[in-house]
Amino acid sequence: MKNSLIVQKYGGTSVANLERIKNVAKRIAGYRKKGYSLVVVVSALGDTTDGLLKLAHGITSTPSEREIDMLISTGEQVSVALLAMAVHKMGLDAVSFTGAQVGILTDRSHTKARIIDVSSADKIRSELRKNKVVIVAGFQGVNLDQEITTLGRGGSDITAVALAKTLKARVCEIYTDVEGVYTADPRIVKDARKLSRISYEEMLELASLGAQVMQSRSMEVAKKFQVPLHIRSSLNNKEGTIISKEVKAMEEVLVSGVTLNKGEAKVTICDVPDRPGIAACIFKDLAKANINVDMIIQNISRTGYTDVSFTVPLDELGRTRQTMERVVKDVRAKDVIFNSDIAKVSIVGVGMKSHSGVAAKMFETLASKRVNIDMISTSEIKISCVINKKHAEKAVRAIHKAFGLGK
Amino acid sequence: MKNSLIVQKYGGTSVANLERIKNVAKRIAGYRKKGYSLVVVVSALGDTTDGLLKLAHGITSTPSEREIDMLISTGEQVSVALLAMAVHKMGLDAVSFTGAQVGILTDRSHTKARIIDVSSADKIRSELRKNKVVIVAGFQGVNLDQEITTLGRGGSDITAVALAKTLKARVCEIYTDVEGVYTADPRIVKDARKLSRISYEEMLELASLGAQVMQSRSMEVAKKFQVPLHIRSSLNNKEGTIISKEVKAMEEVLVSGVTLNKGEAKVTICDVPDRPGIAACIFKDLAKANINVDMIIQNISRTGYTDVSFTVPLDELGRTRQTMERVVKDVRAKDVIFNSDIAKVSIVGVGMKSHSGVAAKMFETLASKRVNIDMISTSEIKISCVINKKHAEKAVRAIHKAFGLGK
Repeated sequence: MKNSLIVQKYGGTSVANLERIKNVAKRIAGYRKKGYSLVVVVSALGDTTDGLLKLAHGITSTPSEREIDMLISTGEQVSVALLAMAVHKMGLDAVSFTGAQVGILTDRSHTKARIIDVSSADKIRSELRKNKVVIVAGFQGVNLDQEITTLGRGGSDITAVALAKTLKARVCEIYTDVEGVYTADPRIVKDARKLSRISYEEMLELASLGAQVMQSRSMEVAKKFQVPLHIRSSLNNKEGTIISKEVKAMEEVLVSGVTLNKGEAKVTICDVPDRPGIAACIFKDLAKANINVDMIIQNISRTGYTDVSFTVPLDELGRTRQTMERVVKDVRAKDVIFNSDIAKVSIVGVGMKSHSGVAAKMFETLASKRVNIDMISTSEIKISCVINKKHAEKAVRAIHKAFGLGK
Repeated sequence: MKNSLIVQKYGGTSVANLERIKNVAKRIAGYRKKGYSLVVVVSALGDTTDGLLKLAHGITSTPSEREIDMLISTGEQVSVALLAMAVHKMGLDAVSFTGAQVGILTDRSHTKARIIDVSSADKIRSELRKNKVVIVAGFQGVNLDQEITTLGRGGSDITAVALAKTLKARVCEIYTDVEGVYTADPRIVKDARKLSRISYEEMLELASLGAQVMQSRSMEVAKKFQVPLHIRSSLNNKEGTIISKEVKAMEEVLVSGVTLNKGEAKVTICDVPDRPGIAACIFKDLAKANINVDMIIQNISRTGYTDVSFTVPLDELGRTRQTMERVVKDVRAKDVIFNSDIAKVSIVGVGMKSHSGVAAKMFETLASKRVNIDMISTSEIKISCVINKKHAEKAVRAIHKAFGLGK
């Protein structure tokens, strides 16, 4: 084999209990038998991290982030030790490391540190040469002061991608509880198809649209360093979805997938006096309140006045209401309307770049099903429509069919 | 204050739950208010370590010791982070460290490593100068290969003693669930008295006799480096027992304490042909089977034959029986008798060195209570008698009274 090194990452559900850890060890043994070298990145067992955070909040409502990192990084350390034991039990040599031990060097921020370098990659290479399976704690690193840091949500994916990049692995396999990336949610669209290949760009859009397969941050890193990813299930041996740079064949596909997000609410500020800086004024206050605004649309409704609409995650709606009370007065708007009865349907595909008429086809499809469109937002490879929640599933099925995405 | 640095060690029961961790933080705040600098060593919460070991044994019956250390060292890491948060909550500055971070450098053995050096003591000193409470994970270290090691039973005590020695602390306070060292077990002897002072040597004998206050290993280290220890309760503010080098006043006390150990069994090999090397032959096999033999007595019973008796921990009696079956044949002994109905009563005191008649007084006391003595063993500062278990408590009370140890 030209390059026999594979980096595998197993998420918390893949190592939720001893039985699953043993299954991961079996899979590792299978790969070793085929001649692959393996670096395995593991998350904390099941809901360990939540349990540890609960302990911290039993002590204080404002725990220090440095100490939070000290605390929760133990979760992955437990996982790597147990997995190493399980691999030993399969008769293979294996060695576990913390993030600090393999030099996952990060910046100085805590609970959401960024990886700067993998400074002890030689240690990993040396263990691989001894035919050992190298098991690395995900989600954690160490800064220049030798303090333990953690990487935030999706941190184990980032660890895996960083190691795959540094060690020049042939592929970075991300094991999860789904079999790959689908053209649509199979619970909604019965003939949804697993995609065998998709580009980083498309996957990034899908991730940002709420497809829970992988965090955007780790996708960004994989894209930047062109690390090929393989999203697959830890429960079977089926091929999943390969995520790689855009290739010619991908462009021939108009649309790769349809997504649905019912987790947002729409906020409309009506009749805002239309003067420069008004949008800045509104969204500065929302940013201060740490509210993640998604789509933003501004429309002139009548001369001198404008309507501004945006969507926010449903679970931030409470804080948004509080903030908007103040904002409405500040900008002298007439009213503010909250609507949590919405859904966002999106299509994603690199083919859109070179093919026209994709948007029109989506709008026509919705119209033919008598679905009214509330908001529209587009990017180079994505079109999103906000519609009434009650039409959500019907809309997804119709679009999936219209673009011929089924099996 | 000439030397305001105190090292405190809190065992697992002292940090068994969030409420107790908060209490430890309160105690720390009290010391800081009085102007002391503090380095605090913490064990894992309650039975965390046992829980982790259970996980390991759910994977394999023969877990690698390196991976065991990786696994169980997380217990103390959780403790230090939570305690740091609790100290912050009291409005004080505090910082937690793993053993590796403060350079608790050990040899290369795992699960029972020995401390070689504290190589990053400057880091601790620097944090102390910033008026921070320094909280260090007990029980764990790091070897020259940057591998995580653990120190075995009583490991947190050893960490505390090593730090107290390196940092030249005025005292090393060992917080536990008893109030100090007593002249006898207060559950047996009602007027048992807490000792205000005791020598390292006496404490070592008491520890080896089963007084569960502190492990012999950490006592040895404290003795070697003359680190003054203060054994006290984490549940109240009472003064405990100071353990220090022998001082003149101690020699005036004949006996410091009476101990009782009901956890041993007596094995007698009868009528062994009395030839050179016979004892070696017997105890070599027991050592191979990893059985901890305590008292050993050899008696000539009739010409050419000898009886050999020894005691072993009750929970090793099963393995002892297996081993003895073979040994009895090998040494051509006539028989072997097992007796688990015994108790060992001991008295300890540095005063014995300079006073005669102590042993005689102990034997007389037992005789006056019609207690038969089965075995006797003595050291410079200790006399132990094996008697029938049913007389155990009566014997302890009589001896306690005879030497005037009560209040």
